[in-house]
Amino acid sequence: MEKGCPFGTHRVIEPVGMLPQAAKKIDNTMQIRSNELLIDVQTLNIDSASFTQIKKACEKDISKMEKMILDIVNERGKMQNPVTGSGGMLIGTIKEIGPDFPDKSLKIGDKIATLVSLSLTPLKIEKIKKVNINNDQVDIDGQAILFESGLYAVLPNDIPEKLALAALDVAGAPAQVAKLVKPGNTVCIIGGGGKSGVLCSYEAMKQAGKDGKVIVVEYSEENAKRIKDMNLAHHVIVADATKPVEVYEKVKEVTDGEFCDITINNVNIESTEMSSILITKDEGIVYFFSMATSFTKAALGAEGVGKDITMMVGNGYTKGHADLTLQIIRESEDIRNLFEKLYV
Amino acid sequence: MEKGCPFGTHRVIEPVGMLPQAAKKIDNTMQIRSNELLIDVQTLNIDSASFTQIKKACEKDISKMEKMILDIVNERGKMQNPVTGSGGMLIGTIKEIGPDFPDKSLKIGDKIATLVSLSLTPLKIEKIKKVNINNDQVDIDGQAILFESGLYAVLPNDIPEKLALAALDVAGAPAQVAKLVKPGNTVCIIGGGGKSGVLCSYEAMKQAGKDGKVIVVEYSEENAKRIKDMNLAHHVIVADATKPVEVYEKVKEVTDGEFCDITINNVNIESTEMSSILITKDEGIVYFFSMATSFTKAALGAEGVGKDITMMVGNGYTKGHADLTLQIIRESEDIRNLFEKLYV
Ligand SMILES: NC(=O)c1ccc[n+]([C@@H]2O[C@H](COP(=O)([O-])OP(=O)(O)OC[C@H]3O[C@@H](n4cnc5c(N)ncnc54)[C@H](OP(=O)(O)O)[C@@H]3O)[C@@H](O)[C@H]2O)c1
Ligand SMILES: NC(=O)c1ccc[n+]([C@@H]2O[C@H](COP(=O)([O-])OP(=O)(O)OC[C@H]3O[C@@H](n4cnc5c(N)ncnc54)[C@H](OP(=O)(O)O)[C@@H]3O)[C@@H](O)[C@H]2O)c1
Repeated sequence: MEKGCPFGTHRVIEPVGMLPQAAKKIDNTMQIRSNELLIDVQTLNIDSASFTQIKKACEKDISKMEKMILDIVNERGKMQNPVTGSGGMLIGTIKEIGPDFPDKSLKIGDKIATLVSLSLTPLKIEKIKKVNINNDQVDIDGQAILFESGLYAVLPNDIPEKLALAALDVAGAPAQVAKLVKPGNTVCIIGGGGKSGVLCSYEAMKQAGKDGKVIVVEYSEENAKRIKDMNLAHHVIVADATKPVEVYEKVKEVTDGEFCDITINNVNIESTEMSSILITKDEGIVYFFSMATSFTKAALGAEGVGKDITMMVGNGYTKGHADLTLQIIRESEDIRNLFEKLYV
Repeated sequence: MEKGCPFGTHRVIEPVGMLPQAAKKIDNTMQIRSNELLIDVQTLNIDSASFTQIKKACEKDISKMEKMILDIVNERGKMQNPVTGSGGMLIGTIKEIGPDFPDKSLKIGDKIATLVSLSLTPLKIEKIKKVNINNDQVDIDGQAILFESGLYAVLPNDIPEKLALAALDVAGAPAQVAKLVKPGNTVCIIGGGGKSGVLCSYEAMKQAGKDGKVIVVEYSEENAKRIKDMNLAHHVIVADATKPVEVYEKVKEVTDGEFCDITINNVNIESTEMSSILITKDEGIVYFFSMATSFTKAALGAEGVGKDITMMVGNGYTKGHADLTLQIIRESEDIRNLFEKLYV
């Protein structure tokens, strides 16, 4: 059994020299190298941006959506939406473990969630069993490969699988909040009422502590109410994050003109960089988790208003992110109930 | 005299509620508010990405380029390239100072460089005097406005104006290097042979000190030779930064498999995120100064290879950036000579 590159370059068909994510087409032969893992796939959790695009292109016709997903995977060897570039993640059962795969504690039959994007994961779909149009999940018969550098989490017994899948999709965000927020900080979560936002708000409340202040900016009254009901922020502001001046004035008011040490951006739409920048204190931090972030808008925007702040690209991975996120689900009955209603 | 918004929202014509940078059209009436500054403009330094686009669209025909620049400014009230979204900066002489403008040490007649992007600066061009096709500079007769939050630097007497203009354009980069690099660090500058790269390499050598290691990755033999001749790195690697595996192997070799604490990306082309990520140590930092950086490629890329690194958006501004950059020009005769040759 031959050993592959830890990053999976041995499976790149074109263009050669790229990594699997940047590749147009990768080899999805389901025969493992000595440092790979073979997975029997149960459910795909398609990335929200990708799923929305597919839904729209197919006018919500399920059979058209099935065909579109199959076509993408047959064409590219992976479930990477050619328009959005994004993937998603999957859950499944381990079928075969290469002798050189680093984690020796894994066993055949273990249920895992992959924590690397589907946009770089070799995938073969035999059959689509169900497309759930409401929560971005697709049940399939099929197989996938995980590279040596690939991340995954063994699914816990005490949390429903689909709930775990939904939460793990955004695990990077609350874990970064845990690293960034210090006791006494003023923290703003933009888009705090969404999936990643709720987890971030919970973690921010915990880390900022009794001398801290957590502010959520949300668009819809409904999601804002959720946050209030669950007590996940000290202040909930209903505002449109694409209107920087409006958000600036409202945050100014609730912080007595002090603004925020740390701003976390969890929205799912474009043009919210400027709001994030304006409400952050000089020498503060903006953490952009949103994939709709524009690099140039952020870079030029901060310079444009003379703000000396650190702006971070939301790396989906940080050490211990899966454990921390599942722990939130265990600690907060409110969040667990909400996610069960939405995703299971 | 009425007072304007510190961020210049009072000059936004459409869409209302946006900041001047995001606006399609701003009011370039050359009558100041009480917290604005009026500047007699001498030279524009068009952003490299924008200038390249204009040059190409006009097939390098100077009179077409002049017309294109005039059309943009007449249409938008600012020199913001509609394709690239970017601006540039300018030098000029202060003509009028609003009574509420914060810096009381400024005097009428002072020569300044604006350090905020032209993409948000109200500008009126009376006449284009010269387009310098080789260094992105355009001499004009015209006027511009600086808002209360706008950044600028008074030009020093001991450095030629156009040299200062060229260096200040990228002042954020070496200033960030000064903040990030600690003694003993291993630092890699990707695109280290270019304008911002040379300044970053100089600063990295200084901060990393005698126990540190500075590596430059450059595409052309010519720019690589420059770095070697000026002694601005311990190792110069000639490689294509869009080929991550090649760069990874070469950096692995010169660092004995330890890789880099800090990677600075100063290239001017797309798809170099993955090289930057792969050569950075776990828990290290990538600072993306390049405007060609894709947010999603960086975010998904790091997760895709399981790298727990901090990725920073290259804020063009950090405190003291102009002074630090001009100081490099004073300290290094080599860099001064090079920049004089290229930009004066
Ligand atoms: N960096 C990474 O590795 C990574 C990984 C996974 C996901 N992501 C990204 O993270 C983002 C959030 O994901 P998610 O699953 O948490 O999405 P989500 O559940 O859809 O949450 C988005 C939230 O933003 C709110 N919002 C939308 N427009 C707004 C506006 N104009 N002003 C204020 N709030 C607004 C939404 O409110 P309404 O519902 O009221 O519209 C919603 O509560 C997405 O962009 C996703 O792509 C990043
Ligand atoms: N964040 C901010 O606020 C801000 C402000 C100003 C500028 N910028 C950005 O900073 C970047 C650099 O600006 P600059 O003025 O320093 O540009 P520059 O002088 O053109 O330097 C770019 C360097 O990258 C090298 N390069 C190009 N392709 C490469 C490849 N495939 N592999 C390795 N090296 C490669 C170039 O080498 P060759 O000459 O051999 O091709 C050149 O040395 C630009 O993207 C610019 O937009 C950002």
